[in-house]
Amino acid sequence: MRKLINAPESMVDEMLQGIYAAHPDQVRYVSGDLRCLVSAHVKKGKVGIATGGGSGHLPLFLGYVGEGMLDGCCVGGVFQSPSAMQMLEVTKAIDSGAGVLYIYGNYGGDVMNFDMAAEMAGAEGIRVEQVLGAEDVASAPKGNEGKRRGVAGIFYMYKIAGALAAEMVALEQVKSVAQTVAANVRTMGVALSACTIPEAGKPTFEIEEEKMEIGMGIHGEPGVRKGPLVAADRIVDEMLESILPDLPYQRGDEVSVLINGLGATPKEELYVFFRRVAESLSKSGIHIYHPYIGEFATSMEMAGASISLLKLDAELKRLLDSPANTPFFVQR
Amino acid sequence: MRKLINAPESMVDEMLQGIYAAHPDQVRYVSGDLRCLVSAHVKKGKVGIATGGGSGHLPLFLGYVGEGMLDGCCVGGVFQSPSAMQMLEVTKAIDSGAGVLYIYGNYGGDVMNFDMAAEMAGAEGIRVEQVLGAEDVASAPKGNEGKRRGVAGIFYMYKIAGALAAEMVALEQVKSVAQTVAANVRTMGVALSACTIPEAGKPTFEIEEEKMEIGMGIHGEPGVRKGPLVAADRIVDEMLESILPDLPYQRGDEVSVLINGLGATPKEELYVFFRRVAESLSKSGIHIYHPYIGEFATSMEMAGASISLLKLDAELKRLLDSPANTPFFVQR
Repeated sequence: MRKLINAPESMVDEMLQGIYAAHPDQVRYVSGDLRCLVSAHVKKGKVGIATGGGSGHLPLFLGYVGEGMLDGCCVGGVFQSPSAMQMLEVTKAIDSGAGVLYIYGNYGGDVMNFDMAAEMAGAEGIRVEQVLGAEDVASAPKGNEGKRRGVAGIFYMYKIAGALAAEMVALEQVKSVAQTVAANVRTMGVALSACTIPEAGKPTFEIEEEKMEIGMGIHGEPGVRKGPLVAADRIVDEMLESILPDLPYQRGDEVSVLINGLGATPKEELYVFFRRVAESLSKSGIHIYHPYIGEFATSMEMAGASISLLKLDAELKRLLDSPANTPFFVQR
Repeated sequence: MRKLINAPESMVDEMLQGIYAAHPDQVRYVSGDLRCLVSAHVKKGKVGIATGGGSGHLPLFLGYVGEGMLDGCCVGGVFQSPSAMQMLEVTKAIDSGAGVLYIYGNYGGDVMNFDMAAEMAGAEGIRVEQVLGAEDVASAPKGNEGKRRGVAGIFYMYKIAGALAAEMVALEQVKSVAQTVAANVRTMGVALSACTIPEAGKPTFEIEEEKMEIGMGIHGEPGVRKGPLVAADRIVDEMLESILPDLPYQRGDEVSVLINGLGATPKEELYVFFRRVAESLSKSGIHIYHPYIGEFATSMEMAGASISLLKLDAELKRLLDSPANTPFFVQR
């Protein structure tokens, strides 16, 4: 195992200690639990936004807690859901009377625990609404969107709902814009190598050197096609062939594009990827607005990338462009 | 080779096409040469700052061209110096009468080409000054600092000299602050795996699965010690034992810490690293101010990390904290 860690079982908490040591002016933890992270600047009267999920995906999930994005986050062990009790603690810490919106990815454990936390919070008089990220077109066919996994596109939900919440609007409005983003974003990924859960000590699966798996999930969930690693342009074309007709994205649309590195893939390659996406969308008459290229949702040392498209309107563009300041994402 | 590229020989230019397609409002190229990148907002009367070096190190070098940092950059092929003529073109494009400062890493090819460009620029009536980054303590012993390689610590030179230049001071002052930073920063790295130059098609060397190389350079230059991969805390301790006495950093000092991922190392591990650095410096009575954790100078898919320390005073802190906005680095 090639990892700069101490013991596998201490990695998550030591990572969190590092985060609190590095960003004490931005984040703190509640209930004496490192895994219950909240913004150091929860604003009175603002709708709180919380997320959560397994560790091993930085900047997901906790990296987006801060000004203009999220207010709180629970993390579990690597690829494990945090508990409902932890989510309840974060919910209580970030609610200031305007209610709390949960935005998280569509995974069984997370859904169960967030549902339970919402119920417990309700019993304590806190209004909670939920919107799920479920935009990986490779994970279930069109018509069965409710079964899809949430992946990198959740960044857009955080960014846009967070920007609207910062304008001090009501919970219903923040929920509504998060739903709009969820409905307008689609993602597909490709993996060139696996990652290793520290406590397992070896990769959960193998992808041979000159192979790839298109449509693989960020925990190594099986993709739609394994095959020889081909040229980047052909991979992009194949991914866009699944993404574009799904919404569908059409001539005249404006979209933000997110090219997300899964962990081990150099930024050079992400830009080679983006180049082809830009070329291809231009040919289709789809205009790119404010692209993002970098690591937004990773699988530790997995090599690969995903492409997300978000269809925009004037209001979404305005919210996408507004400033944000979190430990892992800054926008002026 | 596990890379999302088309042909090895087209990777650099396609990456650059991706960068210009993604950031047209921030960067453009001059002389019809994709590899001669300049800021879209060169300011009249401001000292220009240029850098350059081989490709394969994003965000180095071109990623820092933008508001509050650099004005221009030349890149070569992967791990290859750009030419003196290219540097001259960038120099001419960014000079607006106040002169140009070159800040770059101490590598033979770069030194030769930047020297030649400075001479040619001088002949055209442009004042050019140079400051080299040469802060890798593993690359040459104390007393022989002039032989040291420049690595991730150059980020601090860009940030601080760029912030001062934005205040419209004279070339001598920008050069002087860059020299102060160069004199006060020290770095050491550890590699867990090699990287592959696309045109070579296979790693330039191998590090076995459970091994590491302490002190390795960002092109795979030999380090000071190979050995079994040990716990992260022990690696940090060994690196700090080389870094701290070198300046030396002493009780009462204030330092910024940069934990830099070399490419394939997950952010989780960088924070485990930072945790130990913070713990250790705290014990030594050294105060951490404004740490940076992420990828700042990479070697494509190399696994590993480096630690840089910059000793600060009030003026350096002020300049470190000032805003910046570039395609790869944003600070509010």
